[in-house]
Amino acid sequence: MTELQHSMDWRAELDSRRLKFRHLLDEADCEIGLAFGCDGHAQHFRYLTNFAPVLGDCWLLAAADLRCFLTFQWQIIEAIERSGIESWDAAFDPVPLVVEAVRETGVKRVGVAGVDRMPAPAWLALVGGLPGTELVDVSAKLARLRRRKSPLEVERLRAAARLTDAMLDAARSGTRPGLSESELAARLSMIPLASGGRCAFDPTVVSGTNQPVPIRMPTARRIARGDTVMVDLGAEVDGYQADATRTFVIGPPTATQKKAWSVVLEAYEAAAELARPGVPCRELHRAAAKVIETAGYQVEHRIGHGIGLATSYEWPSLDTEESQLECGVTVCIEPGVYTPGAGNMKLEEDLLITDTGCEILTKADRSLVLPG
Amino acid sequence: MTELQHSMDWRAELDSRRLKFRHLLDEADCEIGLAFGCDGHAQHFRYLTNFAPVLGDCWLLAAADLRCFLTFQWQIIEAIERSGIESWDAAFDPVPLVVEAVRETGVKRVGVAGVDRMPAPAWLALVGGLPGTELVDVSAKLARLRRRKSPLEVERLRAAARLTDAMLDAARSGTRPGLSESELAARLSMIPLASGGRCAFDPTVVSGTNQPVPIRMPTARRIARGDTVMVDLGAEVDGYQADATRTFVIGPPTATQKKAWSVVLEAYEAAAELARPGVPCRELHRAAAKVIETAGYQVEHRIGHGIGLATSYEWPSLDTEESQLECGVTVCIEPGVYTPGAGNMKLEEDLLITDTGCEILTKADRSLVLPG
Repeated sequence: MTELQHSMDWRAELDSRRLKFRHLLDEADCEIGLAFGCDGHAQHFRYLTNFAPVLGDCWLLAAADLRCFLTFQWQIIEAIERSGIESWDAAFDPVPLVVEAVRETGVKRVGVAGVDRMPAPAWLALVGGLPGTELVDVSAKLARLRRRKSPLEVERLRAAARLTDAMLDAARSGTRPGLSESELAARLSMIPLASGGRCAFDPTVVSGTNQPVPIRMPTARRIARGDTVMVDLGAEVDGYQADATRTFVIGPPTATQKKAWSVVLEAYEAAAELARPGVPCRELHRAAAKVIETAGYQVEHRIGHGIGLATSYEWPSLDTEESQLECGVTVCIEPGVYTPGAGNMKLEEDLLITDTGCEILTKADRSLVLPG
Repeated sequence: MTELQHSMDWRAELDSRRLKFRHLLDEADCEIGLAFGCDGHAQHFRYLTNFAPVLGDCWLLAAADLRCFLTFQWQIIEAIERSGIESWDAAFDPVPLVVEAVRETGVKRVGVAGVDRMPAPAWLALVGGLPGTELVDVSAKLARLRRRKSPLEVERLRAAARLTDAMLDAARSGTRPGLSESELAARLSMIPLASGGRCAFDPTVVSGTNQPVPIRMPTARRIARGDTVMVDLGAEVDGYQADATRTFVIGPPTATQKKAWSVVLEAYEAAAELARPGVPCRELHRAAAKVIETAGYQVEHRIGHGIGLATSYEWPSLDTEESQLECGVTVCIEPGVYTPGAGNMKLEEDLLITDTGCEILTKADRSLVLPG
């Protein structure tokens, strides 16, 4: 794809998203919109701009024109290129600029996305600085809009999954006795970075068999023969994040390890079989949880969640969400069994719900045993 | 140092910090304290607990006992070990737990740190859920307390600086024509990760000479002969973050590159000479800015800021802060010149203010020309 085609595709995509945002504002009787983002929580802002700063807050004012405000001025050239928006300002505290820009529009009803993460002083400055103006929280509506992915978004998630597969393949070929968890995690981190992507989150490596906890940061512990080694990681491309897990045993698996792993696989299949339009999200959690509990293990965490511009924060959460899966929704399914003697055993795949079922985006080898 | 000694040192350090926090609360007539943190902004919380989650919010309630609340339960074992605090709860929305825990204390005045980043719904839930209770913002007082570093903190910052030096050395020995900015950044990222540290922020590599911008993310651009290559990076150890920059020219520098670099060095020395107790912070910015402007270049950004549990967010900001430097304060000094023909030229060092002057924590070779 040429740079120009890439840019034209993004322009059309952003036009379409902004039009949907306008409709959403119209439906909420709002004349203009405001989208807020901050470190780790800039998904609404990124959805509407194709940009999120590496550090600091970000505000989009969608009035007659589009205007953006940041904490740091570092990336404004990149931001203009990615967003097609010309007007960017930066200040260590951008809130007064935002309040003034909203005031200048003179409107009486503003739809605001990102209220859930907006710092209290910013919210109070908006309320106090705009007397007579009603602020309507449209965050949930915009989040809902973001669940069903466009073809361009699916392409980015596929690219993130391919990079994630490369990380998982490298874990499979590179895990060996003597390597520390941190060393392995560092090698895996390099892969998306070297190709211009990023890690969606710091890769996790958990090794051993006797102190299973569902997740922790990698340590200086050296991987040893007999260990179960779980790697949980994901790459990010254009903000779109994959999230996948593989588990390996170093040497021949014991009966305890084999049994736990077979339950994980069965739990995964039970959830994945239900991954199609019309199935209530939490049925997937129930199906996998039933397999785990029937086998005599505990369910330590939810069986999956949305993926997109975030991972753990993305909706739907498969344990609590009653609404049905729809075509275009992307989720991860990640059943795990954590038990002394077997260690951390988890399988996690990313799925796109299609018209008739699902497409599994992550494709790396799932086998428990390492080659050689 | 043994694990036990390490743990005892931390226990004494945390006891001392918590005692200071109690005094601060007493001075504000508050019976109990609450410290809030979120992604990228958990410095207050970490200061009082020696822990910050990799994802999600964190709350510390300092009443008769210490209680903590998180978004995710993933790291509770690690959190107990690091903090010495036994009581940890996690919920996807921990705010109702926090409100209830404060209510149970029955107190009428609560000192709250981290209000500046607390999401509006959490703040409104505290205000609404605790009628008759006054919430006093003690964030600025706690931030002030954090500026002067203890011996233990200085040791961690020295360790972060040593890892950062290793990254800068690797940049010096590993930068060569044909390598992309992203590939170089990826290799540098590995260094702190492999030893159990982290990157304080994604390393930046900016190459070329004709489109200087003070900072941007690394790209697929391949480094070429004649390029100026700027690397801005930092390692993190126990939450303590270094922040340093080196600039290299690939091949013999031109007169334009040499002149710009000499101005950067002179600006750095002008600021560093003033780095001692009693000098108003913003004098350092003025001194460096004067050198840059006198040489005919523009001052594109502040000349430095605090370092500690954060980098760009840490106080004092050297351009605006009128108060004086004190013994124990840690800052970076980072003058830069960005001009067509010379590219991005920046030097950044981390300094500890001592009784009589300063100690430069970062020690990597500063020379512009690469070996060989």
